[in-house]
Amino acid sequence: MPDLATRFEQNPIFSPVDVPPSIPDLMVRCVLNPGVFRRDGKTCLLLRVAEDAEDSDTVVRTPVLAPNAPNGIAVLEFERADPDLDLSDPRFIVHRGETYLSTMSHLRLATSTDGVQFEVAPKPLLLGEGAHESFGIEDCRVTEIEGRFYLTYSAVSANGVGIGMVSTEDWTEFTRHGIVLPPHNKDCAPFPERIQGSYWTLHRPFDALIGGRNIWISRSPDLLHWGEHVCLARKRPDHWDCERIGAGAAPIRTDEGWLEIYHGADHDSRYCLGAMLLGPDDPTRVLARSEHPIMEPSAPYEKEGFFGNVVFCNGHIVDGDRITIYYGASDQVVCGATMLVSEILASLRR
Amino acid sequence: MPDLATRFEQNPIFSPVDVPPSIPDLMVRCVLNPGVFRRDGKTCLLLRVAEDAEDSDTVVRTPVLAPNAPNGIAVLEFERADPDLDLSDPRFIVHRGETYLSTMSHLRLATSTDGVQFEVAPKPLLLGEGAHESFGIEDCRVTEIEGRFYLTYSAVSANGVGIGMVSTEDWTEFTRHGIVLPPHNKDCAPFPERIQGSYWTLHRPFDALIGGRNIWISRSPDLLHWGEHVCLARKRPDHWDCERIGAGAAPIRTDEGWLEIYHGADHDSRYCLGAMLLGPDDPTRVLARSEHPIMEPSAPYEKEGFFGNVVFCNGHIVDGDRITIYYGASDQVVCGATMLVSEILASLRR
Repeated sequence: MPDLATRFEQNPIFSPVDVPPSIPDLMVRCVLNPGVFRRDGKTCLLLRVAEDAEDSDTVVRTPVLAPNAPNGIAVLEFERADPDLDLSDPRFIVHRGETYLSTMSHLRLATSTDGVQFEVAPKPLLLGEGAHESFGIEDCRVTEIEGRFYLTYSAVSANGVGIGMVSTEDWTEFTRHGIVLPPHNKDCAPFPERIQGSYWTLHRPFDALIGGRNIWISRSPDLLHWGEHVCLARKRPDHWDCERIGAGAAPIRTDEGWLEIYHGADHDSRYCLGAMLLGPDDPTRVLARSEHPIMEPSAPYEKEGFFGNVVFCNGHIVDGDRITIYYGASDQVVCGATMLVSEILASLRR
Repeated sequence: MPDLATRFEQNPIFSPVDVPPSIPDLMVRCVLNPGVFRRDGKTCLLLRVAEDAEDSDTVVRTPVLAPNAPNGIAVLEFERADPDLDLSDPRFIVHRGETYLSTMSHLRLATSTDGVQFEVAPKPLLLGEGAHESFGIEDCRVTEIEGRFYLTYSAVSANGVGIGMVSTEDWTEFTRHGIVLPPHNKDCAPFPERIQGSYWTLHRPFDALIGGRNIWISRSPDLLHWGEHVCLARKRPDHWDCERIGAGAAPIRTDEGWLEIYHGADHDSRYCLGAMLLGPDDPTRVLARSEHPIMEPSAPYEKEGFFGNVVFCNGHIVDGDRITIYYGASDQVVCGATMLVSEILASLRR
């Protein structure tokens, strides 16, 4: 059964070879999970670029941010022969009870006039900064709220994975707001406008002991301090989203309510996209939710890569009934596809 | 080497037999980890009372809150013979990937004129309420701020463990503020006064993948919405607090800075108390921290019980140089001890 996404013929639109490394010592391993926004008539992607240092037969290396190192980046080394080294998950390096990432991510700008052919900046737009981002910044959502762009991303360090926030009006000067939601948290997608006078955001805390990874919704007077946290939607047993779920980009206002395209994974870590519809005036109410995925890994680049069987969307452009999603495939490349709001809403009514 | 605590001769001051169950169907399994405050010249404890339903040879039972059940409490049953049942940790019942607690906790008031002999209320003061507290509420801190008492506790449900907050002025009418910090989080101890014009709190998020359990500090304009989260202090390798740390009660203002008595555990889950000193005008600065515990399990009731080798303090009364701490011992009974601020500060200078 085909899903609701019409993939770009040009997919993937970004592969690691298309992006120059931030410094010559590093290699771009993956380019994935872009935040998306429109500015001056252009489609802009804020790519997550995951870089690695070259390994050898005997040593595994990974970069971390270190303010006093040359270029601000230090390369950690681990002996492959070390019995305390665990490389079983390609995303992590586990050594003596401490977990490091196998790559370090930054955010890179790419712009396009047609939404398909992009020009990528030669250098990072945003690198991690400070004690809470020393392992990098990942999976940025870009939400325009009252004329200002809010960037919410996973801030990774030895202190955990929390939600970092940066805002800008002109994409030249950036204000850093620090960690707005503490560890473990990812997939923070603020609503683009106030509801009931407040700001709102979706996010995905992780309780490893009870509850697991579900989507929560929270409220704020100022976008910086969050409270009134409510578990909005849970993973569902015996469904495509039985293992974990997380929000995608900012919810889309429709006549029927707030439409959110979210990701879910099953016990095999197969990531699909689904939709949920939230109350127009009370976003803590889930009105409908996809019984089946609206998009699932099917193209070769979605089934094989750095971490295969993944479609993951944290950015899209909405133009009337048409949504152009930009998505990470197999945690390695960036692709594009279109969907229709009307078709998604119809699927939620079935 | 003796620690800095002078234990009450009367310890334990509360055992499960001293507290009547909330309804006849339940048994009080543990009474522990009281929040502490002063009111009308009395010392008041807000005891955590952990209740259980009676098990049989073939069935394990545990209570959960269920609004439509008689007394608002339903009893879940699990067949001991079920191969998908895991009872290896006495605190949890794990069944088919879902985790339940083996007991359900509520908060019970006990009052005293001398701080040693307490009168316990026959009924709960506060029960869990709503979707985020259906497995109970635990380990309450009571902080008086600007004439109002703020109760911060672990709110436990199938959605995870987050921080719930309730406030009251008169201990008759209570305002529920919902979940103020999302899962997984515990050990939330607000400061008793504003610093730099803001409210502040210590808390302990848990990132199971990277970072573990460390103490964070956060800032708020209104005590309800929190941001500017910073990792304040980390567990320390090769120390008594190498596995996890968490805040105790509200920090104590001293001439040298904010004194916080916190708990730490090692890899054997042996819980001790230590102290840290935070900057008087900038509580995100750690000025000093206990190299060795200021209190460690040594009395018989601290070494054996529901979960042995635990001293855990989330409430104390400060009277000049003298701190009277009330603490949970072995996750089963409540005890008292005194310490001197001057001795703790001296130990931090060594």
